[in-house]
Amino acid sequence: MRAFVTGGAGFVGSTLADRLLADGHEVTAYDNFSTGQRSFVQRALGNPRYRLIEGDLLDEQRLRRDLRGHDLVFHLAANADIKDGLKHPRKDLEHNTIATFHVLEAMRGVGTSRIAFSSTGSVYGEPAVFPTPETCPFPVQTSLYAASKLAGEALLSAYAAGYGISAWIFRFVSILGERYTHGHVFDFYKQLRKDPKRLRVLGDGRQRKSYLYVQDCIDAVLHAVSTTGPGLHVFNLGTDEYVTVEQSIGLITGFLGVKPELSYTGGERGWVGDSPFIFLDTRKIRATGWAPKLTIAQSVERTIAWLVQNPDLLERRD
Amino acid sequence: MRAFVTGGAGFVGSTLADRLLADGHEVTAYDNFSTGQRSFVQRALGNPRYRLIEGDLLDEQRLRRDLRGHDLVFHLAANADIKDGLKHPRKDLEHNTIATFHVLEAMRGVGTSRIAFSSTGSVYGEPAVFPTPETCPFPVQTSLYAASKLAGEALLSAYAAGYGISAWIFRFVSILGERYTHGHVFDFYKQLRKDPKRLRVLGDGRQRKSYLYVQDCIDAVLHAVSTTGPGLHVFNLGTDEYVTVEQSIGLITGFLGVKPELSYTGGERGWVGDSPFIFLDTRKIRATGWAPKLTIAQSVERTIAWLVQNPDLLERRD
Repeated sequence: MRAFVTGGAGFVGSTLADRLLADGHEVTAYDNFSTGQRSFVQRALGNPRYRLIEGDLLDEQRLRRDLRGHDLVFHLAANADIKDGLKHPRKDLEHNTIATFHVLEAMRGVGTSRIAFSSTGSVYGEPAVFPTPETCPFPVQTSLYAASKLAGEALLSAYAAGYGISAWIFRFVSILGERYTHGHVFDFYKQLRKDPKRLRVLGDGRQRKSYLYVQDCIDAVLHAVSTTGPGLHVFNLGTDEYVTVEQSIGLITGFLGVKPELSYTGGERGWVGDSPFIFLDTRKIRATGWAPKLTIAQSVERTIAWLVQNPDLLERRD
Repeated sequence: MRAFVTGGAGFVGSTLADRLLADGHEVTAYDNFSTGQRSFVQRALGNPRYRLIEGDLLDEQRLRRDLRGHDLVFHLAANADIKDGLKHPRKDLEHNTIATFHVLEAMRGVGTSRIAFSSTGSVYGEPAVFPTPETCPFPVQTSLYAASKLAGEALLSAYAAGYGISAWIFRFVSILGERYTHGHVFDFYKQLRKDPKRLRVLGDGRQRKSYLYVQDCIDAVLHAVSTTGPGLHVFNLGTDEYVTVEQSIGLITGFLGVKPELSYTGGERGWVGDSPFIFLDTRKIRATGWAPKLTIAQSVERTIAWLVQNPDLLERRD
């Protein structure tokens, strides 16, 4: 396979690129390095089957030129800064919705007919059904990020219906593991590294969240793409458990051996658009034969272990 | 009220503007005249409470300047050419999704906090539940038009959650009545006017469709906006009946007194993205006290009567 990975220098994208190379595929990683990391692509750069392109998905002509000859697009590039979406609403529109349109148009232009897309469990807004299945009641969006991802999903399905592409939409819970660079485990660790005696928590700490280990996520994506037929597919990705924010703080502080004093900003939601409860029904992807290997607790520990070993990354993102 | 009507020279927009003027409001109609008609705004232009601006929603700076001082936006402007969406996919993205983003950003910029939005029953794709309620299972999009409208809905709801605007999303069935300028009743009449002996039908004629009379539609929009409180509201708009394409042909040919030979292109769908069955559950809007006054048959007859009296319009759109 000749794979084209957008966001190929990011957390999930670079990990996926490494896996595809290990599996013997050719990989083009496409990244504008707005949040991608040079260090994440170092190993891959030594592989003759790997090519890194520093490009922006908003540059449609270049994208189209570079996409030619690829079989499958893993479209992982996105503005993933959910919490601060309201500070710059244009960012989600451009980097998520419009960029996804450019990817689809480039595919149509050069005849690439398969795409896997990282959507989000946030598209369910604040659902009434838990665990939330792919077919839950038509949801209402609560964040610009989720709105832009839903717009991306809608484009993929309309292109599948109208132009005959095959599309795999994956609604991710939060992903953890090596190369993890943003999200609340990151924020907590960064705070504790500065001052192990204090930890400020957004919300009341009782928000219930789901996580998936990055290698389990990649297993699921590759498994679905290789075992399901052409057409449109929508899969939730997650484990069959969830933890409260307080519980994940317990995991982090236990692993680090610190006992900070906790202060809470209060409220059911950590920020506008934060979901008090994310727990996805993953029976559909499990029915294809996939299952996660790590628990949430194991994922959190691996993530913290990796952050401890990579202090540079925390400094750079201050 | 100082109302700002996008698509104010179009079918529904110009009719709404006339109604708002009759009700004593101030109205600014905004239209790029891509499909809007000069003749539709003639009467309003004589009213001192009316202002017409020839402007494009893609010109964000101008929009923001012109929106200042308005209380409520009726955002009806759209590329409504569903059938030919696949010929120019950028059009739905720009004129529906991006234009809606510009409207919302302009509102945020000038402090206009209320918006009513014409979405579509097509966002339900090909649902499994009939009549289809607002809370039906999370649908899959089958047309670029519906995908772009869903993206618009998602933006409205995220702006409601994030910036506190109030938003009314109306999922329309096909609207009929005076000033109707596109859709299958229009296409059938145009064919029959040229040659009353032959009629070519897209699909097998058994598609089941729903329609609503334009004045009933406007009643519903104004009723919902004035009787429901702040926040986000989603309403289906339609009647509690549907007709097959064959039945509406019967209504049209009966009214015109012609007996054409019918030929069918075949298939359940008239085109890619055509929905074989549209029938919305309207209990939610009815619970607010609204009810349609005209049946589908009456709406079709009024539409044909109007088209017969306005041959210029058919010529211009040939």
